[in-house]
Amino acid sequence: MFEHRLRVRFQHTDPAGIVFFANILVYCHEAYEEFLRDGGIPLEEFLGKRKQTLPLGHAEATFKRPFRAGQLVTVRVSVGRIGERSFRLEFDLFGESMEHLATAATVHVSVDPATGRSTAIAPELRSLLEKHAPPA
Amino acid sequence: MFEHRLRVRFQHTDPAGIVFFANILVYCHEAYEEFLRDGGIPLEEFLGKRKQTLPLGHAEATFKRPFRAGQLVTVRVSVGRIGERSFRLEFDLFGESMEHLATAATVHVSVDPATGRSTAIAPELRSLLEKHAPPA
Amino acid sequence: MFEHRLRVRFQHTDPAGIVFFANILVYCHEAYEEFLRDGGIPLEEFLGKRKQTLPLGHAEATFKRPFRAGQLVTVRVSVGRIGERSFRLEFDLFGESMEHLATAATVHVSVDPATGRSTAIAPELRSLLEKHAPPA
Amino acid sequence: MFEHRLRVRFQHTDPAGIVFFANILVYCHEAYEEFLRDGGIPLEEFLGKRKQTLPLGHAEATFKRPFRAGQLVTVRVSVGRIGERSFRLEFDLFGESMEHLATAATVHVSVDPATGRSTAIAPELRSLLEKHAPPA
Repeated sequence: MFEHRLRVRFQHTDPAGIVFFANILVYCHEAYEEFLRDGGIPLEEFLGKRKQTLPLGHAEATFKRPFRAGQLVTVRVSVGRIGERSFRLEFDLFGESMEHLATAATVHVSVDPATGRSTAIAPELRSLLEKHAPPA
Repeated sequence: MFEHRLRVRFQHTDPAGIVFFANILVYCHEAYEEFLRDGGIPLEEFLGKRKQTLPLGHAEATFKRPFRAGQLVTVRVSVGRIGERSFRLEFDLFGESMEHLATAATVHVSVDPATGRSTAIAPELRSLLEKHAPPA
Repeated sequence: MFEHRLRVRFQHTDPAGIVFFANILVYCHEAYEEFLRDGGIPLEEFLGKRKQTLPLGHAEATFKRPFRAGQLVTVRVSVGRIGERSFRLEFDLFGESMEHLATAATVHVSVDPATGRSTAIAPELRSLLEKHAPPA
Repeated sequence: MFEHRLRVRFQHTDPAGIVFFANILVYCHEAYEEFLRDGGIPLEEFLGKRKQTLPLGHAEATFKRPFRAGQLVTVRVSVGRIGERSFRLEFDLFGESMEHLATAATVHVSVDPATGRSTAIAPELRSLLEKHAPPA
């Protein structure tokens, strides 16, 4: 489990005064970037050095309560299934009183950009994921 | 069924050269806005006049092929389940040779912003949705 | 002179109901991309083939009237100064009754990404710019 | 003078690997939001309570060095001219070794949204701005 906090920005909200849904998935990706950085594998370095990309194969989110401008949000990241060539992350987003705002999940596929094909997850990424995976 | 075409912008793509996943959900929302406009209910007027909002309760997407800068994308919108207070839209996204790039779905809830509670879908919106719904 | 039309999206507007200012500069960049595409030099191909990038050295905008969700906007692109290694574009943005909404300008520098240094504007780009430049 | 630190996100960068210019203006706005919050006037509350909006009348930026994914950026906010109905903020953006990445400025106009017309800057905002203004 890993947690990242962020603040909802004015420009993330729409005329109805609440965060536009796609921005909530951006918050999840921001937490994923911090999860990797905290684990010693910053995404930008990983992509540069490893010559692998990690495009999303799937994303989903369920929104329970509105996110409002100025609000502090805690994003909790958990590792779901770890496959040979892909992995699933799960996200829970909470407000300031730890009220549950949303859940989300993303599936990331390890891809060799030279061929465009899926490839085995790099060992250092696999070991970071396993450290955070739920006990079998 | 309704179709909307758009072009992938340079700034939608990330350092891996492909569209950042959350932008693909933005494309779906853009097609939804055009679907409403084409049906005579522009979202911005609807929200203003009807005093109802239509926040998303759920969104999901599965990405099959990368979206690249400069590419023309066709977004096909279909109406899924129409409930009392919510409805589901389904999206298929195609590239220039009609190759299937992604599927997505969004669930929209009719909410009275004064109370923050769900409320019956407005009649003009319901009839637009029903016109596009698959035969029972 | 080159013109591009676009529609203001719901998610470009903020809780005050008007377009967040940075999105207006995004509209200018979108018009610039279409200007290049129309001139036979799509930005994404140019960067790929020419191994040159065109980062901005400067941007400025003056906002005269609010941009609102759903509004059609015409962006007029003019070529300003063309230097050895940089060029300036000027933008005028108009609403549906051709009311003047904003002006903007961007300065683009031709850079060799291998060295990070400025370099001469590529000949095909220079000739496109000159075709649109005001008479001396 | 007020400082805000933020991290460049993966999705802020474009295929050339550097931050898309309009995002740098978004960073300035984020620092402005934190400047107001730190001064006890969070923008979202101000707009709600005061029934005033603060749309931008002008924005400009000069980019000196590329901003890259993962980089920590310090945004220094200074107050420039304070007028009757508008004020100017100045921004300096620095990288991790305090190298100067960019300068920017924004002019904000106090507007009564009921009439759409400019109006005197609210007293609590004026006193916050004056506290940060350079000596006359």
